[in-house]
Amino acid sequence: MVLQKTAVVVGIGPGAGSSIARRFAHEGYKVALVSRREESLQPVAKEIESLGGQALSVPADTGDAASVRQAFQTIVAKLGAPEVLVYNAGPGMKWPPPGILDLDPAVFSHAFDAGVTGALVWAQQALPAMVEAGRGTILFTGATAGMRGGPKFALLACPKFALRALSQSIAREFQPQGIHVAHIIIDGIIEAPRTKGMVPDRDQSSFMSPDAIAETYWQLHKQDKSAWTQEMDLRPFVEKF
Amino acid sequence: MVLQKTAVVVGIGPGAGSSIARRFAHEGYKVALVSRREESLQPVAKEIESLGGQALSVPADTGDAASVRQAFQTIVAKLGAPEVLVYNAGPGMKWPPPGILDLDPAVFSHAFDAGVTGALVWAQQALPAMVEAGRGTILFTGATAGMRGGPKFALLACPKFALRALSQSIAREFQPQGIHVAHIIIDGIIEAPRTKGMVPDRDQSSFMSPDAIAETYWQLHKQDKSAWTQEMDLRPFVEKF
Amino acid sequence: MVLQKTAVVVGIGPGAGSSIARRFAHEGYKVALVSRREESLQPVAKEIESLGGQALSVPADTGDAASVRQAFQTIVAKLGAPEVLVYNAGPGMKWPPPGILDLDPAVFSHAFDAGVTGALVWAQQALPAMVEAGRGTILFTGATAGMRGGPKFALLACPKFALRALSQSIAREFQPQGIHVAHIIIDGIIEAPRTKGMVPDRDQSSFMSPDAIAETYWQLHKQDKSAWTQEMDLRPFVEKF
Amino acid sequence: MVLQKTAVVVGIGPGAGSSIARRFAHEGYKVALVSRREESLQPVAKEIESLGGQALSVPADTGDAASVRQAFQTIVAKLGAPEVLVYNAGPGMKWPPPGILDLDPAVFSHAFDAGVTGALVWAQQALPAMVEAGRGTILFTGATAGMRGGPKFALLACPKFALRALSQSIAREFQPQGIHVAHIIIDGIIEAPRTKGMVPDRDQSSFMSPDAIAETYWQLHKQDKSAWTQEMDLRPFVEKF
Repeated sequence: MVLQKTAVVVGIGPGAGSSIARRFAHEGYKVALVSRREESLQPVAKEIESLGGQALSVPADTGDAASVRQAFQTIVAKLGAPEVLVYNAGPGMKWPPPGILDLDPAVFSHAFDAGVTGALVWAQQALPAMVEAGRGTILFTGATAGMRGGPKFALLACPKFALRALSQSIAREFQPQGIHVAHIIIDGIIEAPRTKGMVPDRDQSSFMSPDAIAETYWQLHKQDKSAWTQEMDLRPFVEKF
Repeated sequence: MVLQKTAVVVGIGPGAGSSIARRFAHEGYKVALVSRREESLQPVAKEIESLGGQALSVPADTGDAASVRQAFQTIVAKLGAPEVLVYNAGPGMKWPPPGILDLDPAVFSHAFDAGVTGALVWAQQALPAMVEAGRGTILFTGATAGMRGGPKFALLACPKFALRALSQSIAREFQPQGIHVAHIIIDGIIEAPRTKGMVPDRDQSSFMSPDAIAETYWQLHKQDKSAWTQEMDLRPFVEKF
Repeated sequence: MVLQKTAVVVGIGPGAGSSIARRFAHEGYKVALVSRREESLQPVAKEIESLGGQALSVPADTGDAASVRQAFQTIVAKLGAPEVLVYNAGPGMKWPPPGILDLDPAVFSHAFDAGVTGALVWAQQALPAMVEAGRGTILFTGATAGMRGGPKFALLACPKFALRALSQSIAREFQPQGIHVAHIIIDGIIEAPRTKGMVPDRDQSSFMSPDAIAETYWQLHKQDKSAWTQEMDLRPFVEKF
Repeated sequence: MVLQKTAVVVGIGPGAGSSIARRFAHEGYKVALVSRREESLQPVAKEIESLGGQALSVPADTGDAASVRQAFQTIVAKLGAPEVLVYNAGPGMKWPPPGILDLDPAVFSHAFDAGVTGALVWAQQALPAMVEAGRGTILFTGATAGMRGGPKFALLACPKFALRALSQSIAREFQPQGIHVAHIIIDGIIEAPRTKGMVPDRDQSSFMSPDAIAETYWQLHKQDKSAWTQEMDLRPFVEKF
């Protein structure tokens, strides 16, 4: 299977997903936009098309392996085997975050399905053609919570730690085969109407620009294979860390 | 609910579980032995009783919240609310470990249930009485794979990373309430008939003594609250790391 | 050279040094007490002797290799080759800590000599007899600042990061030869008249007991070689981290 | 003092320094080339000038604060206050690397002066004008040895750990003032005649391209302040890690 100039972005919604899709479209990539909610996809697809790009809306439930496999087949049929996979879907966040005693085990378990098993299945779909081609890029969106388990943050931290492990495992198995695998730790709040509402008193200059994040994803994809990044952080200049 | 001199050890089988149970029994603790397989429990319970200790075999499926809750009620009814919880159950390991493309998503998903969600549910059962008493100890058995995602180790690494996150989240929420939470990174192969068979050519002196591991668990429980360990590693002297 | 039941504790003053020395003396070890200031040593030596122990005061400047070598010869001559070396000397702390622009390069450079090169030279003295014996223990006192470089903490963080690197390098070279090397991260303020004065408003229950710290050092020394700890943290239960 | 479009690259020799200098010159930056050995500087300066760029050779001993201060004054006088500082000087490496017992304390101590104190002094020179301008970039070249202290690697690991601490301390103090501070972990061998000779049997495709490294330094400098990287790794695709 020949790789096409196609990028799959899983997780379009508040956050950096749509900016990442636009950034790759701007470079001539056909982009597949994946989200559980179709209503998140249409405006992004329209915007990309209005800029002269090619976008495909693919509603899929990342927590369900069959749904992922079907979505991938659709993508391959319409846009070809992707050269780039961006896994930007989260495990699902609750606000305010629940403490340990208020955490529903079923919700916790599902967070692994959506946040980690989904990432595995997407990678399993994309990897064979990448291995055959000896190239390709897989980028995982991580979070501060993937580095540090804070109080009341188990629901986010546990899947994000696991996603980081998955990223390392895939990198160590497939980088020698020419496939670049990176984990980007987003340490800050991405600018979006929803996030601004969550922390209304926050200094507006402290939000992260989704376009700035997207620029780094693009640069990671462009890195020469003699000097690949496996992990990096991104945070606004004012952020304490 | 008044805490009793009771220790629950989840995960009795090859590994350090039975040694940990014996160590606490030796100090006068009533011990609840938990495993999915009842046949793993009986010999350990008998040995503890033959040494004058009190042991309760509690078969339970740690990957099933209802089973965990029922097991905990049995423990409380027979041995009282535990002062100590040791989560020593693994996510289930396959040998040889599968590469990313051979990893069944259902198996992967279940590894989170058994290796992480189970730990959450056990902690949720044990914590309320500990919080009420303002003391208690929860010890999680981690692994090298919880620190580093190796090639072909995603099935172990992802849940173990997540378990580490859970341990940190519980520690940060409950240590200020007097409950000691620690994560012990086992970086080596524990001596047991099964593990010796897995790596037959390995120098026999390089296996970890389960009793030596158990000693460290006991010392962690005894630490003064002014100087608690949240994380430590354990490895045989010959181990490369 | 035959190892004696001798422990060298470098860094006696405010902090855990004197408690560590007492703990080993209590177990029958002859203890060499090392500090730049002789007046820090006498009260500790007297106390140990009054409890029936044997203590040797050895004033030495840990930042000066010749002084360390001479001190070590004195120790060997009077107490024999030590089985245990505890490097508990700090790089020298200023309060309040200077920002980057106020940090005198000569002070910074000297902090490496006292905090890291001194540790190397002490280890170089103690290791040959340990290697010959195939056993021995070297314990390094680390700090939170050895894991994270905070604003205005470069003077402490840089040497403490380097000390951690030294501990790992020595462990990886000498553990296979039977010598246990551990790094203990002290994440909190140790109870002492001086430290209480530095943070007068702090909740008094949040200080770390030096005796509790010493107990962990002793337990590390006693660990079975099949299950050695290379790194662990210690912090008071109320500490945020 | 007004910042000029000037970049200072400390550490020109085998490695990525000259490529980094060329990359910034290519973007119109005046570049100051700093090395202890003047003979390393001339060919790089000539090449940059032949491509239409402006380069200044500044011989200086980074392990000597007075030499650094004088070099900085020369740079400011001739090229203006720099907007970019790249600290690419190493602590000095010996090959083969000495074990702990063969490590000369004076050499070890000097490695901190050249590898860390020098970095502090360079940052102290560059920061005031950056603070005044509310912008600027400081990039530190780190190494795998800055993350992990290997056997026989103490001479490299200890200063590199400390440099990482310095990078974090400066970032946490100055990023809120608009100055971007990043630490790049080079995990591999950079292509150069000298390094190829050190490991003659190594697969030639496994060397890192210095130009590829330089590209990432440039992209770091260009990052939007709402999404800055503090730390990232770079390694060749074939590298085990």
